[in-house]
Amino acid sequence: QNALLSATGTTIFTVMSALANQHQAINLGQGFPDYDGPEDVVRAAAEALLDGRNQYPPMTGVPELRNVVAAHNRRFYGLEVDPDAEVVVTSGATEALTACLMAVLNPGDECVLIEPLYDTYLPVVRLLGAVPRLVRLSPPNWELPRAELAAAFGPRTKAILFNTPMNPTGKVFTAAELAFLADLIQRHDCYAICDEVYEHLTFDGWKHIPLMTLPGMRERCMRIGSAGKTFSLTGWKVGYITCDRGIAPNVAKAHQNLTFTTPPNLQRAVAVGLAKDDAYFAGLAAHLQQKRDRLGEGLKRLGFGVLATKGTYFITTDVRPLGWNGDDVSFCRTLTEEAKVTAIPVTAFYASENAPNHYARFAFCKGDALLDEALVRMERWL
Amino acid sequence: QNALLSATGTTIFTVMSALANQHQAINLGQGFPDYDGPEDVVRAAAEALLDGRNQYPPMTGVPELRNVVAAHNRRFYGLEVDPDAEVVVTSGATEALTACLMAVLNPGDECVLIEPLYDTYLPVVRLLGAVPRLVRLSPPNWELPRAELAAAFGPRTKAILFNTPMNPTGKVFTAAELAFLADLIQRHDCYAICDEVYEHLTFDGWKHIPLMTLPGMRERCMRIGSAGKTFSLTGWKVGYITCDRGIAPNVAKAHQNLTFTTPPNLQRAVAVGLAKDDAYFAGLAAHLQQKRDRLGEGLKRLGFGVLATKGTYFITTDVRPLGWNGDDVSFCRTLTEEAKVTAIPVTAFYASENAPNHYARFAFCKGDALLDEALVRMERWL
Ligand SMILES: CSCCC(=O)C(=O)O
Ligand SMILES: CSCCC(=O)C(=O)O
Repeated sequence: QNALLSATGTTIFTVMSALANQHQAINLGQGFPDYDGPEDVVRAAAEALLDGRNQYPPMTGVPELRNVVAAHNRRFYGLEVDPDAEVVVTSGATEALTACLMAVLNPGDECVLIEPLYDTYLPVVRLLGAVPRLVRLSPPNWELPRAELAAAFGPRTKAILFNTPMNPTGKVFTAAELAFLADLIQRHDCYAICDEVYEHLTFDGWKHIPLMTLPGMRERCMRIGSAGKTFSLTGWKVGYITCDRGIAPNVAKAHQNLTFTTPPNLQRAVAVGLAKDDAYFAGLAAHLQQKRDRLGEGLKRLGFGVLATKGTYFITTDVRPLGWNGDDVSFCRTLTEEAKVTAIPVTAFYASENAPNHYARFAFCKGDALLDEALVRMERWL
Repeated sequence: QNALLSATGTTIFTVMSALANQHQAINLGQGFPDYDGPEDVVRAAAEALLDGRNQYPPMTGVPELRNVVAAHNRRFYGLEVDPDAEVVVTSGATEALTACLMAVLNPGDECVLIEPLYDTYLPVVRLLGAVPRLVRLSPPNWELPRAELAAAFGPRTKAILFNTPMNPTGKVFTAAELAFLADLIQRHDCYAICDEVYEHLTFDGWKHIPLMTLPGMRERCMRIGSAGKTFSLTGWKVGYITCDRGIAPNVAKAHQNLTFTTPPNLQRAVAVGLAKDDAYFAGLAAHLQQKRDRLGEGLKRLGFGVLATKGTYFITTDVRPLGWNGDDVSFCRTLTEEAKVTAIPVTAFYASENAPNHYARFAFCKGDALLDEALVRMERWL
């Protein structure tokens, strides 16, 4: 059997969700809302099943969705893209990530990754025979270590894969940070795979900036969006890649070998969602910001060290101020078993040695009553 | 960019469907029905969207579907499998194929493939760094060349991937052929990836036999089924892998890196479908057999050499009896442009040199009126 997979664990999100179920814990681990997405979008998906378009859609996506993805790029970021040649719809952002990596990497190529990182990045780079070059961000400020980053790029660098807004850190890359990255990418003549699934989940006036909008980056970036995150429908598994026509054919051919197409009714419903007015997107962020505040203030009250969250579904907390002396993994297990609340240990997002090991990630994309109940349970336990 | 993908063409199915659209041709190329799947299954998918289960389902599939996949294995093949540990639901059979290959192959491993082959097999084996060993079946009888097959297995063989009922040949592997394969697999201590998406589409009393039911094969086979093919809903992209608990963890971890999960509403609807009574499955085959006869007899009347089709959606025809002197690719192009009917050139299913190049594949999974109209157009053209 494949040695890399045999050596890989089941994803921490599945492991912790299973543990949560086993202990009937409130699951603030895996990042999914416990509320449903917009009613009109869900209804559109149901209606789209009933009008006889249930056979293979076009490989790169139904025209309705590709057109709206292009319009969305224009509306929010001023990006002009050709819906027929520069958009590829995928069966979720996970497939999109794998398709983009597969599209550009050859065996032996290097790919720069930034820790903490989402848990499919590293195994997929390795499964493709490419070589990861890890650069580490550290809590509590998650600052970009510019010298290390520059040193990670070299003659064999083919791509960088990074995530903004960033899971689990809640970091939103600044224009200056992106300009620094753009300069490295251009100097090393490589590609950027931009995991931007949390693009609409930013707070306190922080705005998401796609790397693709920076000078020289239009032809080098594969920008990944996610209907699951943008419409609170994580089970739908509809993702979309925006990239230059020079890259899109290989991305499409990777998609052809991974899933080939994506269910047409869900694509058509996502097209309805992406066409919503600006108020929807602003409302989504405001809704999540209120939840971030509710959980974050509660955690602070309980004595957690609460790190700043500028975007995403997640708050990272330092558990040392609670007096916890063990590591993050034992903290998250114990919290699940005893307090009946589940969080994710942040070491799960580090692949290299000596990761910071006393941080726990909480998802706040949950109903207010559930967040409150989780806080009550943790207070009782502490 | 990735050299293997850059050298790969867009799938013939997409190319020919695009050409069909361009020329307003009747598309008997890409294998999808032009009728909808069972109404109760479609309705179940619509209803399942509305009860709040739109977030990530369990990674290996919703329990409803895993249970019914296990029951389906028992009902049709007498296979006992554990729905919790031996079933993995995927986003279509294409993903299932890639996940199974990824689960077992290491770079440098050999994988036996049988030509004519479906067009993702070879690129995926190569993208994983493994080495394909091709064995060729030839028209008109598509007999298993036993000596060549035995010679293709060796000390580096990790797996064989094959398809029964077989696209495009319409071949259904016999018990004797499967026993021959099982013996090779056991002697070379390797795995079998069994693409059985057409399992319920067999004709004239031919019965599909999963290799997994043969002695010694229970632990070695990954058996792939497809809701798209079994319920005439090719756009849904729900596949299911049945395999031993010794292999399933790696298959699941491959799936984790490819798509992670599959839309829960579609999974729940497919569970409704797979629970249908035997009459549904028999009726499906009878319905397709009648279409095979309708198109096959018509093609014979027009002068095509019509090869036997024991299963699948497809009839392979020899175009030489028509007096066609060019190859199959030019035949299919010309047929599309002039007769306004699209077929697939069978050389697209061969990767090695000197493939038989005067065969065209027609899909008969279409409304009777459309099949008749296609015949009228071809008659006019001839
Ligand atoms: C794909 S399961 C994990 C969901 C998620 O993005 C997260 O919890 O970080
Ligand atoms: C995945 S598109 C092709 C459908 C099919 O199986 C075929 O036409 O052979």
